[in-house]
Amino acid sequence: MLDPPGVLPQAAWRLDPSPAIAPDEVLVRVDRLNLDAASYRQLRETYAGGPLGPNRIRAAVLDIITTRGKMQNPVTGSGGMLTGTVEEVGPESPLGLQPGQRIATLVSLTLTPLAIADGLAAWDGQSEQIPCDGHAILFARSIAAVLPDDLPVPLSLAVMDVCGAPALTSRVVQKGNIAVIIGAAGKSGSLSAAAARQAGASKVIGVVPTAAEAELLRHPPATQSSLVDEIVIADARDPMGLAEKVQDAGGPADVTVVCVDVAGCEGGAILSTSQGGTVIFFSMATSFSAAALGAEGLAADVTMLVGNGYVPGHAEFALDLLRSTPAVRALFERRVEQ
Amino acid sequence: MLDPPGVLPQAAWRLDPSPAIAPDEVLVRVDRLNLDAASYRQLRETYAGGPLGPNRIRAAVLDIITTRGKMQNPVTGSGGMLTGTVEEVGPESPLGLQPGQRIATLVSLTLTPLAIADGLAAWDGQSEQIPCDGHAILFARSIAAVLPDDLPVPLSLAVMDVCGAPALTSRVVQKGNIAVIIGAAGKSGSLSAAAARQAGASKVIGVVPTAAEAELLRHPPATQSSLVDEIVIADARDPMGLAEKVQDAGGPADVTVVCVDVAGCEGGAILSTSQGGTVIFFSMATSFSAAALGAEGLAADVTMLVGNGYVPGHAEFALDLLRSTPAVRALFERRVEQ
Repeated sequence: MLDPPGVLPQAAWRLDPSPAIAPDEVLVRVDRLNLDAASYRQLRETYAGGPLGPNRIRAAVLDIITTRGKMQNPVTGSGGMLTGTVEEVGPESPLGLQPGQRIATLVSLTLTPLAIADGLAAWDGQSEQIPCDGHAILFARSIAAVLPDDLPVPLSLAVMDVCGAPALTSRVVQKGNIAVIIGAAGKSGSLSAAAARQAGASKVIGVVPTAAEAELLRHPPATQSSLVDEIVIADARDPMGLAEKVQDAGGPADVTVVCVDVAGCEGGAILSTSQGGTVIFFSMATSFSAAALGAEGLAADVTMLVGNGYVPGHAEFALDLLRSTPAVRALFERRVEQ
Repeated sequence: MLDPPGVLPQAAWRLDPSPAIAPDEVLVRVDRLNLDAASYRQLRETYAGGPLGPNRIRAAVLDIITTRGKMQNPVTGSGGMLTGTVEEVGPESPLGLQPGQRIATLVSLTLTPLAIADGLAAWDGQSEQIPCDGHAILFARSIAAVLPDDLPVPLSLAVMDVCGAPALTSRVVQKGNIAVIIGAAGKSGSLSAAAARQAGASKVIGVVPTAAEAELLRHPPATQSSLVDEIVIADARDPMGLAEKVQDAGGPADVTVVCVDVAGCEGGAILSTSQGGTVIFFSMATSFSAAALGAEGLAADVTMLVGNGYVPGHAEFALDLLRSTPAVRALFERRVEQ
């Protein structure tokens, strides 16, 4: 099944995507892939330019899937998720699924055996959501959620893709905390901002890179209220600049949540956080050593959490936040439509 | 000072090591570098083989320091620490040091401007401790500790190099917890095992890779008592194998501490930890994405901490653990002598 044998699926270079399932596995007919933001960004920047861009990015993604038996970007190490219809359920599968159900996987594509049958012909390369035909295997320890009836599929998918962030934010933020959300107008950022507020944060400070994103955050389309209490426009890769602006906006933070998919945000996040505070890193572009050595080098006594994409009940929690927070829904709908 | 300008020292490609200090800086005459274990391992594996090995590894380290103005291994991203004598203290330095004091830096070499004057001539390349002559600059936010009189310098240095690990372990482990220390016979591992026991762990399970290390842990030289309650011999890169053996030894853990400087231990650490438990990653070989996606892929509800090398009072805490725990001292003395 795995190459090399004995490693866990995520660490394996190659998975075997043949459609014969074991008694505890599930076969899914795939209709859509949703690439992780860091992965799509890398692919787009490398391949998508010029008139041949769509062909080149399609070929690049197909090559990865064919070579590795899974969609794991070899540069970023990251994957994404998929939707599809349950085709066959092994008699010992513990996932509780039934043939015909429309589902989304909540485990990373990096550990999901996958094969594509249509050459990704329906994808124009302009979005991280890839319509396709293919099949995937879910293991016994996989996590999959049945797609809700009351929300459009692309919207549910976009929410489920980042649903670990608001769940962990909600767990860490205490009543009265000051929370800083870096990348607050994005998908995981807007959900995390809503989660921080729901958890009782006394102030939520949203960091965005541009005036346009600030405007979006201040007045989400078709809604009356902002998701955050203060907005900071800053380059999160500039540690001193970010920390000063966060300070001016009422920081430093008790809890800082990093939700931007660019490298080099570790120092700014650490410097924007109080001694004794917590930084949650949700960006797959986070460097472990930059975080560890950065905090040490700044003599920063901060707790740093690796953003675990799994918290029990995370999909339902995030979908409920979207349903109950018009500003989050507006931001998501805008992003999904783009 | 920095190249590129405006970034924090650790993220900078190159620092300016010229010996003129700013009013809040300190000039140190360096007599010894202590390379981070992951960095030394990479250098040794790349350069140290064959009769020309010592020359090649010396040249490699010198080249890094000359090119970058600091000792930051470009492959591992990691550094280490140094000892020296305070030569000049700027009038506005907040570090409380005085000329003539023998000190060790507790910030990483990755953000310490450094120049070498003796070509590392006294180093045979056989140890991560490099005797040398040179100078270094401490910034206002640096951390340096005056070396204690009651312990040999190499021993104090070896302790201070890893002193963040036992301090954070002590903070996280609660009375009655089961603690698993991966790499328990090593420097950070043995201190973390002692810290877990002192914090009230009901059981400390030490994981080592070989029978020889197990014997060392079971009967540290010249001492009567083991540092741990159970010993597991396992390859920490084999997730299923490790988790099964930890289970057999009384696991899974409430708190798992990863103290081995090899890549690929994320899955095993996660699988060896209870749902709701905590993994502390102290190895600089940790991959952020392997940890984040691994936990998600295993549906593991574990808190994952980036091992922050700075906890207030960490050097004194670790030195006291060494003084009060004969088994730790024995293991350290054996490693420092080698």
